[in-house]
Amino acid sequence: MSQDSTERIVTALREWIARAAPGARLPSNRELTLQHGASPVTVQKAMRRLSALGLIETRPGVGTFARAMRTARPADYSWQTAALGALPSRMPLLSSTQRSAAPDAIALHSGYPAPELLPERLVRQALARAARLEAAVLRSPAAGSPELQAWFAGELAAAAPVGVTPASARDALIISGSQSGLSSIFRAVVGVGQPLLIESPTYWGAILAAAQAGVELVPVPAGPDGPDPDAVERAFAETGARGFYAQPTFANPTGAMWSETTRTAVLEIVRQHGAFLIEDDWAHDLAIDADPRPIALQDDDGHVIYLRSLTKSVSPALRVAAVIARGPARERILADRAAESMYVSGLLQAAALDVVTQPAWRTHLRGLREQLRARRDLLLDALHEHAPTASVETVPRGGLNLWVRLPEGGDAEQVVRECAVRGVILAPGSEWFPAEPSGAFVRLNYSGAAPERFPEAARVLGDVLSGS
Amino acid sequence: MSQDSTERIVTALREWIARAAPGARLPSNRELTLQHGASPVTVQKAMRRLSALGLIETRPGVGTFARAMRTARPADYSWQTAALGALPSRMPLLSSTQRSAAPDAIALHSGYPAPELLPERLVRQALARAARLEAAVLRSPAAGSPELQAWFAGELAAAAPVGVTPASARDALIISGSQSGLSSIFRAVVGVGQPLLIESPTYWGAILAAAQAGVELVPVPAGPDGPDPDAVERAFAETGARGFYAQPTFANPTGAMWSETTRTAVLEIVRQHGAFLIEDDWAHDLAIDADPRPIALQDDDGHVIYLRSLTKSVSPALRVAAVIARGPARERILADRAAESMYVSGLLQAAALDVVTQPAWRTHLRGLREQLRARRDLLLDALHEHAPTASVETVPRGGLNLWVRLPEGGDAEQVVRECAVRGVILAPGSEWFPAEPSGAFVRLNYSGAAPERFPEAARVLGDVLSGS
Repeated sequence: MSQDSTERIVTALREWIARAAPGARLPSNRELTLQHGASPVTVQKAMRRLSALGLIETRPGVGTFARAMRTARPADYSWQTAALGALPSRMPLLSSTQRSAAPDAIALHSGYPAPELLPERLVRQALARAARLEAAVLRSPAAGSPELQAWFAGELAAAAPVGVTPASARDALIISGSQSGLSSIFRAVVGVGQPLLIESPTYWGAILAAAQAGVELVPVPAGPDGPDPDAVERAFAETGARGFYAQPTFANPTGAMWSETTRTAVLEIVRQHGAFLIEDDWAHDLAIDADPRPIALQDDDGHVIYLRSLTKSVSPALRVAAVIARGPARERILADRAAESMYVSGLLQAAALDVVTQPAWRTHLRGLREQLRARRDLLLDALHEHAPTASVETVPRGGLNLWVRLPEGGDAEQVVRECAVRGVILAPGSEWFPAEPSGAFVRLNYSGAAPERFPEAARVLGDVLSGS
Repeated sequence: MSQDSTERIVTALREWIARAAPGARLPSNRELTLQHGASPVTVQKAMRRLSALGLIETRPGVGTFARAMRTARPADYSWQTAALGALPSRMPLLSSTQRSAAPDAIALHSGYPAPELLPERLVRQALARAARLEAAVLRSPAAGSPELQAWFAGELAAAAPVGVTPASARDALIISGSQSGLSSIFRAVVGVGQPLLIESPTYWGAILAAAQAGVELVPVPAGPDGPDPDAVERAFAETGARGFYAQPTFANPTGAMWSETTRTAVLEIVRQHGAFLIEDDWAHDLAIDADPRPIALQDDDGHVIYLRSLTKSVSPALRVAAVIARGPARERILADRAAESMYVSGLLQAAALDVVTQPAWRTHLRGLREQLRARRDLLLDALHEHAPTASVETVPRGGLNLWVRLPEGGDAEQVVRECAVRGVILAPGSEWFPAEPSGAFVRLNYSGAAPERFPEAARVLGDVLSGS
């Protein structure tokens, strides 16, 4: 009887699903039990059958839903090819750093720290508190919440040297993550078809945002101490560029930190050319052996446009960052942000401000520094022992990554593929170059995977490199 | 003694402020009382003095802060004028709808509903629950949370007629508010210098996003039943445009609703021209006398790009919306979103999904409908009685606004200014026209201010119009 009942329910539900809209919610198991006069076990059996047939999907705690049914006519969107035209520019859809990895893989490819390195308790408490504020039901001003603006401006102001007028709260524009800041700055301050100096290698997200904005990139090679100021001067003189995008502190991916001499010289060159330095201080909270001293601290003429995000240090779910810019540049960037997204959720702003103004935030950052140090050193040691032909030229004094040069003649993409087959996910270096890569590199994030698996990961890389 | 003490505290604090960073928090009044051995009244007097001198600002419930101090050298950002060049296009910084009004003013200018029309309890509970989820500390996928994608797709699918294959969950891209969707669609699907048909009048945010994307607008006049399909046909034929941005249901600002005939005809014209209809269903949750039937329901060839936001119905702090697009257009839009902002906060997505899947959400929407109806009718009656020369040509069957034509020869900007002086804030109609306004209009939002003040507001408008 149970077999027959199961069959009967399956048939009835197949008919129901065929008529239902995809995504329609099925009656609950309880309702089906009553409706078909069947036992709960029989209904469950029927549901398992439908699930195995791919006709339904169960979302635990939500319900069971009809899956989209294929119609006879396959969709044909080929007309769009004419409407859309050729691709406007090199726009990679997804960086390899954003791919998800199998749960048992050792993931060294991501750009984000593991949740255990985040101030999780603070974040959850701040969000719960923010849920009770007015910010949960009101619109935020376009420039951001005045309190959060004041916090970002105050952080810089507190470190400003005597004689330099620091930026005011008004100059700090709240944005939802630094990526949207890059997009707006490139559109509003550089502009379509205009040249922009950029370090090479550098953050792939900046290369992507520049491609989207239609900006012409002018790569400037950057070593462990930053770029050669003479090369920066030449690039400005030759191209007439009015902007230079750079990560002077714990650069992604190389970990490079500009020397004091380079900082002073580049700011002076930027001034002489009537240009902007777009300073992306992405790792401000991710210091290990050195404290960030943004170049923005030295500037009160509006030459430095400063980007500072909390996404990687507070939580990737609190998409909150600031652009600090002065003068007409501020107005242009704000106008672009307003046109792009109107305003940033006031709830996220309130929660972010809550986190960074807790005394426990300072404690968290001190602990984070030690954890990053331990992880960095563990991965360095593991590479040294198990993958001796992989060379790390700069030991990063902050940030999340090791930038690893492969032996002469190595093929980074090939190495990445072979490591992936063996369960270790790396990011190929090519994504960080605005032009052809200057060598074979891979980037290893030491803040993502469990550190106890670093030796295993290094062994896999060593094996792949030695061809064993 | 009190006078002297006040002076002493003022002097001490002036010195403190001169050394402090701008934005630094002053000691609390309690601390100052103890520190200076003064009475609370004396300390308060000193604070008022400092405030009058412009040296401090008090933020109630937060604290008192040093204002930015001017240094001797005034900032000179004039070099930026050369670096930035002329303004790229008409980019108004702030719509009059986004201005904040004095607390005692009757604010009919805003584009948002008052908090009492939001499902506040649901939102706060959802946020508190989301704070405990993984979504609070993880990065969301670029396309959005699969569950929320499925919800948006399912909403359309549930209403799709037989024979039309509805969009799948994958086709729903989660974005942070519909403004960012407009920006991405205009950039990714239309492109710089390309023509885009647009209703006139229409949503100012769409005009702004088009200006930012460098799109060439082709205005098509739209009456209470929508645009004349012949005019749409001519505009496509003359310009070779590949896109038409429209709000077929409860259009902002006019409240117009396209007739069935117009819907069918325009979709057919769009198909024949191998073009996209960008359907902004902004008021999907704000129906009064008619239920929204998106044109997207009729399309399975990817001609309709559908925009649907929860910002105005759930909460302005839950910046969550979806673009539903199919085929290569989906890929282009997703690539643009990824370059622009990487991903949307998973926390906001989880909270939004929580709200719209609660049974209480349906109850809320039913109540909202009645409240909007009552408010709309109250404002209509008040205008009829107190401002008879102001004419409302279309009684909106949904949405938040009355579109009011002023008497022949009226000057909308002048009327808005005079009403503002008398404490009633309206929005001048010119902001909704992609070209010259076709007449003198003002827009009145009946969902913002307290409805009991509508008669008062209508009297002020009537007085201003009659010159009394």
